[in-house]
Amino acid sequence: MIQISAIHMQDVLYKLFLKYKFTSEKAKLLAETYTKNTLDGVNSHGINRVPLFIDYIKNGSVKIDAEAEKGETFGSIERWDGNFGPGIINARKCTNRAVELAKLYGMGMVALRNTNHWMRGGTYGWQAADAGCISILFTNTQANMPPWGGKDSRLGNNPFIVSIPRKEGHVVLDMAISQFAFGKINDYKIRGKKLPFPGGWDNNDVLSNDPEKITTTERGLPIGYWKGSALSMILDMLATLLASGNSTYKVGQGTYETGLSQIYLCIYPEIFNDQGIQERLLNEIIDYTHDVEPMVSGDKIYYPGERTLQTRAKNQKNGIPVSESVWENVLKLSE
Amino acid sequence: MIQISAIHMQDVLYKLFLKYKFTSEKAKLLAETYTKNTLDGVNSHGINRVPLFIDYIKNGSVKIDAEAEKGETFGSIERWDGNFGPGIINARKCTNRAVELAKLYGMGMVALRNTNHWMRGGTYGWQAADAGCISILFTNTQANMPPWGGKDSRLGNNPFIVSIPRKEGHVVLDMAISQFAFGKINDYKIRGKKLPFPGGWDNNDVLSNDPEKITTTERGLPIGYWKGSALSMILDMLATLLASGNSTYKVGQGTYETGLSQIYLCIYPEIFNDQGIQERLLNEIIDYTHDVEPMVSGDKIYYPGERTLQTRAKNQKNGIPVSESVWENVLKLSE
Repeated sequence: MIQISAIHMQDVLYKLFLKYKFTSEKAKLLAETYTKNTLDGVNSHGINRVPLFIDYIKNGSVKIDAEAEKGETFGSIERWDGNFGPGIINARKCTNRAVELAKLYGMGMVALRNTNHWMRGGTYGWQAADAGCISILFTNTQANMPPWGGKDSRLGNNPFIVSIPRKEGHVVLDMAISQFAFGKINDYKIRGKKLPFPGGWDNNDVLSNDPEKITTTERGLPIGYWKGSALSMILDMLATLLASGNSTYKVGQGTYETGLSQIYLCIYPEIFNDQGIQERLLNEIIDYTHDVEPMVSGDKIYYPGERTLQTRAKNQKNGIPVSESVWENVLKLSE
Repeated sequence: MIQISAIHMQDVLYKLFLKYKFTSEKAKLLAETYTKNTLDGVNSHGINRVPLFIDYIKNGSVKIDAEAEKGETFGSIERWDGNFGPGIINARKCTNRAVELAKLYGMGMVALRNTNHWMRGGTYGWQAADAGCISILFTNTQANMPPWGGKDSRLGNNPFIVSIPRKEGHVVLDMAISQFAFGKINDYKIRGKKLPFPGGWDNNDVLSNDPEKITTTERGLPIGYWKGSALSMILDMLATLLASGNSTYKVGQGTYETGLSQIYLCIYPEIFNDQGIQERLLNEIIDYTHDVEPMVSGDKIYYPGERTLQTRAKNQKNGIPVSESVWENVLKLSE
């Protein structure tokens, strides 16, 4: 691993995206988002993912000039069409719009179809919270988990995000419905380690913690077994029918993972002029959790998003740890 | 087990609730809901729970005359105070109100504080779907799971419900954030069986599938380990701060589980006049899932809510299976 400063990474990426014909404004937004994702420790959906994003531009899945457009609307709910533009740019815009609607109506929803991978979903949870909004966001994906009891992967891991604004640091939950991301399973494989818990099925339809076996079958385990299976399915249903977009089934019919459906739901808690009561209630829950005796002496218990803030601060100070080969690859693309 | 017809059960319960001084209208609603829950196979939050509900009336946690009242409102979002009335009656009313708001605004939310156990959360998902609405509903509870890495139970299992209306049968997900309900763990204990997967921690802080050990510690496992831990915490935060109500922490300070906070969010999909497109998209996802080859030959793969419909039909035909001792107990209470 090498250390790269956030400013330098953003600068390199900005030039890279300019080279690939993005407008200056869009190149800036993309560079900023990929850098922030990496700064927060999510390299898998930050710098590591840039080469694949470029591939998706080259194969035509991501249309660099496309813009998300508003379709049918009804009060606080709007359908948007992403027109196969970059997932990050569409997601930024739809989060902004859901925030605007929430500030007008108390709640606001954007249901987006025909978009591309938004990289780290939590990014838009942080964005909404920075704008003072609670957010509930989710996306469908290509299939990578079998429905409970089934052999083939027919469910997406459908990342699900909830964020709550808080003065001392937002609360942000960013979780895929799979027990482990395939990127994470691959990390274990490379390091020759077993997963700490079962993460998918082997060739004999037995649950396994062997990353080698799971990456072979590409059948991941949903959180909570049958529960996550049902949750993943219903999130796909909600995104698909509210956006009138592609389901995981339809997404899987193409060669590339594109044309996704996503939900951006924001709530503006300041409609209740509570004079700090909400902040106090939030801290009451956090304090109660922090206060628990750890199972392993010295361990700490965290609220969702807390460790992200720690990683962000550390990487801002020391530079962002990046794989040397990934960074070389990105530099080569920029030449 | 004995078989009781739904009509007979409802009649017995109606008279029981009249005896405990509920108005005729409320006694009817309670009897109907407890019966429907049992008809759908959820005895644990149907007939089995009636004696405990009567205890809660006797100990003053449930106030039979109390009505939920509207508090602060902002457009499509309303705060209600349950005034410690029966959880079922408050939940029915708030679901109705969220449906009304959704039909006016596209989306509607009721955030309810100071209510009691709503029994089966799915009931209100079915109710919203019958009224043509998508629903996202959740409640906090007393603590019964440790936050990830902690020793004591400080998180509720916070049931989470999502429902989608569908002509051929609604899709209804009704899941607690715990891997197994304590009632279920107790069933395994009585039958002298192990859980099929770990369901909580033993006295040595080791994950266990031994129901005896888990019921001793009362430390249940969240779905997806650290993921469910974070999900449970953030659901408690949302319910608490939107309702300005009690958190799991506050609920745990009393002797009884009362004064809960709940969210009722409804969306009215007919705002998009899609002429059956949504139904088609829903069925596309269901068909894709049904179509998967099962791991165990002869097994079927279900969408959320599908088996409930099967159980309902079976029990309507053959009568509802009820534990003999539970039924005797209920009859004694009615005398």
